[in-house]
This record gives sequence, structure tokens and C-alpha cells, in this order.
Amino acid sequence: MTAKGLEHIIVGTTSLSLVDGEKGRLVYRGYAIEDLAQHATFEDVAYLLWYGHKGTPVQVSALRSAMTAQRALTPTALQVLRALPRSTEPMDALRTTVSALGASTPGTNVDIEHALALTSQIATINATFHRLRQGQEPVRPRADLDHAANYLYMISGKEPTDAQRRMMNAYLVLLADHGMNASTFAARVVTSTGSDLYSAVTAALGALKGPLHGGAPSKVMDMLDAIGSRENAENWMRGAIARKDRLMGFGHRVYKTTDPRAEILREIARQYSDPALFDLAQFVEDRALALLHETKPDQRLYTNVEYYSAAVMHAVGLPRDMFTATFAASRTVGWTAHILEQAANNRLIRPDVEYVGPLQLQWTSA
Amino acid sequence: MTAKGLEHIIVGTTSLSLVDGEKGRLVYRGYAIEDLAQHATFEDVAYLLWYGHKGTPVQVSALRSAMTAQRALTPTALQVLRALPRSTEPMDALRTTVSALGASTPGTNVDIEHALALTSQIATINATFHRLRQGQEPVRPRADLDHAANYLYMISGKEPTDAQRRMMNAYLVLLADHGMNASTFAARVVTSTGSDLYSAVTAALGALKGPLHGGAPSKVMDMLDAIGSRENAENWMRGAIARKDRLMGFGHRVYKTTDPRAEILREIARQYSDPALFDLAQFVEDRALALLHETKPDQRLYTNVEYYSAAVMHAVGLPRDMFTATFAASRTVGWTAHILEQAANNRLIRPDVEYVGPLQLQWTSA
Repeated sequence: MTAKGLEHIIVGTTSLSLVDGEKGRLVYRGYAIEDLAQHATFEDVAYLLWYGHKGTPVQVSALRSAMTAQRALTPTALQVLRALPRSTEPMDALRTTVSALGASTPGTNVDIEHALALTSQIATINATFHRLRQGQEPVRPRADLDHAANYLYMISGKEPTDAQRRMMNAYLVLLADHGMNASTFAARVVTSTGSDLYSAVTAALGALKGPLHGGAPSKVMDMLDAIGSRENAENWMRGAIARKDRLMGFGHRVYKTTDPRAEILREIARQYSDPALFDLAQFVEDRALALLHETKPDQRLYTNVEYYSAAVMHAVGLPRDMFTATFAASRTVGWTAHILEQAANNRLIRPDVEYVGPLQLQWTSA
Repeated sequence: MTAKGLEHIIVGTTSLSLVDGEKGRLVYRGYAIEDLAQHATFEDVAYLLWYGHKGTPVQVSALRSAMTAQRALTPTALQVLRALPRSTEPMDALRTTVSALGASTPGTNVDIEHALALTSQIATINATFHRLRQGQEPVRPRADLDHAANYLYMISGKEPTDAQRRMMNAYLVLLADHGMNASTFAARVVTSTGSDLYSAVTAALGALKGPLHGGAPSKVMDMLDAIGSRENAENWMRGAIARKDRLMGFGHRVYKTTDPRAEILREIARQYSDPALFDLAQFVEDRALALLHETKPDQRLYTNVEYYSAAVMHAVGLPRDMFTATFAASRTVGWTAHILEQAANNRLIRPDVEYVGPLQLQWTSA
């Protein structure tokens, strides 16, 4: 059977997350995302996804200590980061350095030990590259800070406020897994050949970078900047739709209603972010939805996760060009959990293709 | 519909290559692989796959000049190669350095210009890393040598014999494309998100590394070494089958008869390789096929491309741990041709998955 894009083709089973696109529901191993965003830390979610059940306080504390102990980069990874031009895109720097970590971590590594080390190190890579490209030395991680707070600390050199820590943690929890998206699928294809964890995550990073997947959240901020004011919103968006430009932050391959993560991030942004920016964002959201439903009534376009992700990442002080790399810092938990799940019950992923080219040509004329 | 491993799911159309697993037939854009192996250079095949038709002598000569001009690495790529430990696996070095090339090549790069530059540079990366890990300085490429000859020259520092050049060229022609294999599919998944050419090839390299895909040809040589003599073959292989070890170089997901590339490589090895090794390889092949058909009659196991690839790569003087990276140096042409084809008519590749985990758990007890 032919299925371009593999839409509606079920590639296998997973116990990691349920994405219900009709009902707008996201569940990690039985727990609704709304429940986790309110009560769980990123380390809780990492434990849940890797081990398959909610960790006890002692278990999660042990995982947190193990992750804290793995924050430092290898000398090879540091040298590679220093070799990259300062103008390198953060996702390119991350992809290259994760690959370099793999190059200096030989052998069998598809296990939780390497998954947690890599999750710690990806945060350090993002922060280190950001420091280096500004001509600053990297900030040493602080063992007394949890993953979310330490990430912001290593980037800015300042201890984040409680509001910033909460926003960062909720974002990392919400983005940690999402069924069989394109980057997770790329990681599973690579794993299915018997390759290693770093190769699989490197592939996932390459996929996440694409604007049709994780590469576009900063464009939401660019759009809000371009709109600038409530008064300008309607005209600006009608112009964009007339030019067939996409309104950023709306529509999703799976969700045919509002993305549940967008609902949660909207409330977080309402509570903690700059009120003027939040007011504009919410006004633009309302007008955008009305315009999209008016002009494309058959497409069921709703707010997606990128829309309020952008507002929240802006509010914690992340530069726009680090939004996608920060998405990756969260999703590494889900990628590695999928890699472990694939390896535990593997079958080479290799679809078929229909050849529609010529036949029976002759290279040399007789 | 559920299709673990996506077997028999047709993910789309291609005009690049036809793999007929029942008839043992492989065709690139209309030309049978037997025809190409005999008459075409690697540069001819690259032109054919990228441009869609056989190039005139003038066109192929221009492509060869363009590839020759792109052989040098960027300073960033060289620094990354020098930063890697000498014990790095060549595939890890290649994956990391291709990613670093991408990091220092920003912007839109899904085009033939970057495909040909990367194909040139991958040969240089393999050779450079091999020199560096031996404590030797890299050998500068020679513009008067074609791609196959220059590759061997940069690795060994010696101009290859005519036999070696012919073997290397035929190998590079034969492995350049092969339908929708796992690494090509990984590259297309990454491309489908709108990501760049280097991200897609980096993903493909991670997939090719896996032993269920491209990571096993050196194990054929290890097996022939372990067998050692005709007299020992039967006993050794019966022991391996009894221990449920795989005999290396037999069986393929698609081919249910002899891989046509194996037939061609067998003749090339017969003509050019060490007669004692060829004699042992052919004897072991015959006995292995008889034993496999006797012990696993329902599995249709035949000689695959890895078997005589190993003999040919050994004969041209490549170290065993560079066999897979040399496979990659050929397949980059196919990967990049598929990336161009995917980008020209794109649809995000994102299958579905069935959630089989728990539901309605509560994070905090009330």
C-alpha cells in the first residue's frame, strides 16, 4: 500500500506517550500532561519515561544526582565546540557536539546510563556554545540547582528567579515526548539498524532543526514583533494570508483542536511573562484563529505548541536562536526513551518505494 | 494499518533506482547495474543520479572538475578531525565531521552544488582521519587522479595500481544507490522536516553504521580469518549455526536470490584479488549456501553485497575498520540524490504509533 508521508500508517506500539489529536490530549505513561506540568519536575518526567513508572522520592533524587554528576563535557566535545565558527546555528553546534560525544564514547551505549548522561550534557552544550560565541568562558554548572534552573544559570551566569525556574521546568516537562513525531521516528530508524544512541540522537537533532518540525518557534516572536500592536494585527494577518504566508504557531499534523501544551503554556505565560507581550500574544491568537477559520474553514487550524513556547522561552531570557536547541534539550528524554524501547524489541525499519523511472536503457550504443 | 518495520509499505515514488528482490535486479535511472559496473565511472554515476540522465563527456568532465575543486576540507572540519581521539571509529569521525561541515555551511544547501562538494569531502574526511590516527599528516589530493584513484591515494600516500583503481571504481559504482534502504530513508525523514542536506546525510551515516545495515562487511573478513582453510569451513560454519551465530554476508531484507552486486563483485575479486583468498572465499560461499539451505530451507538466504565487498575492499588495501566508511563514501551520491528528490516534492514523513501503555494514572494521591 502507498502512503506518502506515512500518514495513518502505524509503525508499531509504544508505552511512552499517547497523542490524541481529536480530543487534544497528551499522556506520558498514563499521566495526563496537565497533571505533570503542575506537579512534576523535569527529572520526575525523565525517570517516568526511562524507567516506565513514577519514581519514589529516593529514586528521583538518585537520578538527579546521577544527572548532576554528568553535566561536564568531555575534552573532545569542548574542543569541537571551540572549533566551530561563532556564527554557527545553535542546532548545528548541538548536532555536531552530540556526534563528537558519541565519537569519544565507544561501544554499546543504548542504556539509561548513557541516556541520562546525554540529557545532562545537551544542556551544557547549549549553554557552553552560547557563552563561547559571545566571547565568554563557559559557566560551571551548579550542583545545588536542578536541571531547569541550572540550564538558565549556565546560559546567563545568573541564578534564575523562581518564576523563571518554574517556567523553564514546565516547558521541559511539556516538550519531553510526543508520540511518533518526525525526529523521534528518525531516531528509531537509526536505532533499528543496530546503531548507537548518539547516532540516533544526532539524527533526531537534524530532523528537529527543520522548520516543519521544531525549527520555527522563534518565528512566532518575529511575527509578534512585526505586528507590534493590537491595532495592526488584523491588517497584518490578512496581508500575510493573502500573500499565502503562514501564520506562525497554528496548525498541527495530529492535533485537530488546540494543542493541550499550548493551553498550559498560555496559562504559564499569563502568570509569569511580561503582561504587555502576553496581552498582544493573546489578542493576536484570538484574531488569527478567527481569520483562519474564516479563510480556511476546512483545515481545522488551532493554536500549536510553538505559539506559547515562544512567549515562555522569551520570558525566561533565552535568545531566539536558542529556542529550537532548548526544545531539543527537553525532547532528548523522549528520544532516548524511544531509542531504548526500539532496541528492546527491534525490527529494521525499511519501507518500500515505487520506482517510476525509465527502464532498459543501454549505457554504450552498440 | 499496522506495519512493524514498514515492510511492504510504499512510502512514495522514486526515479533513482529499482531494486527487484525476486529477480535479483538493480537499475539506476534505467541502466542495469551490470552495464554501469563495466562501463561507467563513479563520476558518471554521480552525474546520472543527480541530474537524471547520462552526462555527455563534456558534462561529466565538468562535474569531475567541480568535484576535484571541492576536495579540500574547511578549517573547521580539519580542527574537528584533529580533536577526535585516535581510537574513534571511522564512522563516528565521518558523522561528526560531516555535521561540522554543515555547521560551517549555513543557509539553503539542498542542491547539486552541495551534494557534489560533500561527496568529494567525505572521501577526504575518511582519508584524513586515517592519516591523523596513525600520527601522519594528511596527503594532499591529486587533481590528475579520478575520485576512486584519489581516494586510495589519499589513504595510502601511494598511487594505486590500475587493478586497484578499477576495483575501487566498480565498488563505488555498485554501492551508490539502493532504493529505500534504512539510511536513505533516515535522510529522507530528516529532509521532510525542511532541514538541510548535512543534517540529512549525518542521519544517514548514523543509520549506515548499524550492523543490520552497513556496519558488518568487516565481519566477513573476520569470519574468513577464523575459518582459515577449506578443511575447516564445514565444521566452523556448522558450529556457528548451532550456536545461532549469523554467517556473515548472507541474507537480505529485499533480495530473495543472489544480490546482483555480489555477482559482479565476485567476478571482480576473481580477476583482481589475491587468488588464495578468493579461492577460500568462494569455497566458503558455496558451503555456506548449502548449509543455510539445508538448515533454514524456508528463509531463502543468498549471498549479499557485503560478502564480496569485503574481499574487494581488502584487495585495494583498505583497513577493515574503514569498510563501512568507504561504503558511505559511495552511498553519499545516492543519499544526496534522494534528498534532492524528497525536497522537490516534499511531504513531512511522520507515521502513527499505537499507544499500549497505561491510562488515567494520577501523579499525586488526593
